[in-house]
Amino acid sequence: MTKIDHTHDPKLKSWVESANDNSDFPIQNLPFGIFSYDGARPRGGVRIGDKILDIFAALTAGLFAGDLFEAAEAASQETLNSFLALGEGPRRALRKRLSKLLAEGAEEAKRVARCLHDCDNVKMHVPTRIGDYTDFYVGIHHAINVGKLFRPDNPLLPNYKYVPIGYHGRASSIQPSGTSIKRPMGQTKALDADAPWFGPTQRLDYELELGIWIGQGNPQGEPISISKASASAAGFCLLNDWSARDIQAWEYQPLGPFLSKNFGSTISPWIITPEALAPFQIPQPKRPPGDPEPLAYLLDEQDQQSGAFDIELEVLLQTPGLAKQGLQPHRLSLSNTRHMYWTVAQMIAHHTVNGCNLQPGDFLGTGTISAPDRTGFGSMLETTEGGKHPVELASGEQRAFLEDGDEVILRARGRRDGYVTIGFGECRATITPAR
Amino acid sequence: MTKIDHTHDPKLKSWVESANDNSDFPIQNLPFGIFSYDGARPRGGVRIGDKILDIFAALTAGLFAGDLFEAAEAASQETLNSFLALGEGPRRALRKRLSKLLAEGAEEAKRVARCLHDCDNVKMHVPTRIGDYTDFYVGIHHAINVGKLFRPDNPLLPNYKYVPIGYHGRASSIQPSGTSIKRPMGQTKALDADAPWFGPTQRLDYELELGIWIGQGNPQGEPISISKASASAAGFCLLNDWSARDIQAWEYQPLGPFLSKNFGSTISPWIITPEALAPFQIPQPKRPPGDPEPLAYLLDEQDQQSGAFDIELEVLLQTPGLAKQGLQPHRLSLSNTRHMYWTVAQMIAHHTVNGCNLQPGDFLGTGTISAPDRTGFGSMLETTEGGKHPVELASGEQRAFLEDGDEVILRARGRRDGYVTIGFGECRATITPAR
Repeated sequence: MTKIDHTHDPKLKSWVESANDNSDFPIQNLPFGIFSYDGARPRGGVRIGDKILDIFAALTAGLFAGDLFEAAEAASQETLNSFLALGEGPRRALRKRLSKLLAEGAEEAKRVARCLHDCDNVKMHVPTRIGDYTDFYVGIHHAINVGKLFRPDNPLLPNYKYVPIGYHGRASSIQPSGTSIKRPMGQTKALDADAPWFGPTQRLDYELELGIWIGQGNPQGEPISISKASASAAGFCLLNDWSARDIQAWEYQPLGPFLSKNFGSTISPWIITPEALAPFQIPQPKRPPGDPEPLAYLLDEQDQQSGAFDIELEVLLQTPGLAKQGLQPHRLSLSNTRHMYWTVAQMIAHHTVNGCNLQPGDFLGTGTISAPDRTGFGSMLETTEGGKHPVELASGEQRAFLEDGDEVILRARGRRDGYVTIGFGECRATITPAR
Repeated sequence: MTKIDHTHDPKLKSWVESANDNSDFPIQNLPFGIFSYDGARPRGGVRIGDKILDIFAALTAGLFAGDLFEAAEAASQETLNSFLALGEGPRRALRKRLSKLLAEGAEEAKRVARCLHDCDNVKMHVPTRIGDYTDFYVGIHHAINVGKLFRPDNPLLPNYKYVPIGYHGRASSIQPSGTSIKRPMGQTKALDADAPWFGPTQRLDYELELGIWIGQGNPQGEPISISKASASAAGFCLLNDWSARDIQAWEYQPLGPFLSKNFGSTISPWIITPEALAPFQIPQPKRPPGDPEPLAYLLDEQDQQSGAFDIELEVLLQTPGLAKQGLQPHRLSLSNTRHMYWTVAQMIAHHTVNGCNLQPGDFLGTGTISAPDRTGFGSMLETTEGGKHPVELASGEQRAFLEDGDEVILRARGRRDGYVTIGFGECRATITPAR
């Protein structure tokens, strides 16, 4: 469990004014990311309000001396793999220093100010060179909802409550927020058709997920035990695992989804640290009566007590019609990470229990996190029941699935009485027509 | 179709004597790989007989001038990603130069000889930094055999003859030949048990596959057409996709195999080029009557005429008992790449048709390539019918599945009357006990 310290003090303000005004990025957040500006080589930065602290610039300005030099140097590189590899200690030390440098009244404020960029002027990148990407399926309400559509008589398979189900995804097509997604072509087969049809997907969907960045990994053959697993999660982001449901239905047996998912995934670019999310750690929700206990390798008292998170997850849909009429984006979903059936530590312990090696900068997705009722379903497939009940928009438009020009915006925030709200920033992308 | 030229001349001999004596690596082969010796930094090399040509040494000796410098420089690096990214033209030009340098009577023989290492003294590495690894399922006899065991009433699913089925695998745990594989732990559930059991897999298996190295890839959103797809396959190797069948049976629904596969995969370390395999290109075997035509995006006349390969695939099993009695390894299987239902070009065209981006150095597996009868089945699962009919060994031992201390050796060779045999080298690894 990450401890609360002075960096979490809700009274703490920054001399960067925009950080104090209900920003996703107050001084209690301080996420890491990779940015570039003016076409220069990408490099590490820390978000504060509407500014980005250029870590390399701060390093050369002498702001990270002694023990902090190595961590700051790693965080200033072209990807954050080396920084994540350093693990908890250096990350926390760097956070403390950053908190001090950016706090109201900091002596170094003037020198630090020279290292800030307006975030409007920079381009954000995927923060690591992702070695492998694994997607889980820990949103139990999603698993039930989707199971009903694919297997009405057998929605939740017998392994679900024993196995944190996961599968490998495509790393190369993961894109930062703001990169458009081209509607994929593929094979689909109508239930009553003799043969498949080839063309643009007619059932393009989003999936609301939490992303997890791996810090210190494990050598092949040496599992990460459940008691140490949460320490391997170096940070979090939002993940939209775009899905072509018609392609998926036709291709997924027997080896799982492939082209229905790997045409693109979108992430929010900031790595929100476990430290920033410490105030939102909660006990793992009790399993309903009748559910089995997790097997021993997935069971840890500390993890049961504080391994889950209370983070609000929101999905907004912007359409050409809404935009034209000057209307606000439509809220498709309001969910919460507390609807995960397995914790992040359980996902990591399971992933490595067979000796599979995780590496710094690897990426995990939770799978779609749906709330129990329709207002919090994390995909159109669920919200519209496979397209049967389209969403009605204030513009007069309807959506069974996503159309060209639609933009999906994911947001997340940790919120708690008496504490400062910590946001994730946005994960957004627009659908462009098939080629 | 790769053209036959003077580098393929079966009369061509090398001044490296061991290349001329039924080696897997005659002068007509010339595969690329990454080696290290004496703990030095890994670097690129070319195999000839029982020697490795150190490309960096040859480069500094001035053996690759002019246009060849860039290709040789790329092939001398710590991974072959940059070399594979150069594509066909530079690879073929470098092959011609290497053929000339290593041919009997080469003027430069003395200078080249100084750049050779004994292959016994070097360590081989995975030849690229693999960005993503995808495993297909194109061995139709394997798909039928396995289908029978998992779904007796429905062995081949309706999508099989339309979709080159594939799924994402784990890149981090791919190891070069010679690295042992630790028996994985995991959840398994007996059919009659109420709950799963946790422990070492009891059904450890190998899978005989061809591996494909991607050269030039594609930008996200821009598919590689079937007519251009074979040019993206920069080389080939052997792949043993180790599988824990009991873990697989319990975990694989609904998202596919995960921990049953990702604890380790073994490859042969040499990248056998399309040029070396040109003499073994064959027409794609005719589909049986009643099978559908491939959809248009998977159909290309050239690919139909020469997109398949006639390469013999062999699996040998060495056990502690056989070794103790001084007996030869037991041949488990003799199969052939002609049993692939889809060509490599079809795999690549399908993989990218939705816009998924392949990158230089990415890796594809074909899936298990079984021949139609038991002597050529590519996994124990098939050979022993799920363990029901164990293999009898000359040592008196029996094997339903693999046991600790067993070593599986995959071999492959292109063989044709009037031509020189081209080998792949070995893909071997020993099973060590679970932790």
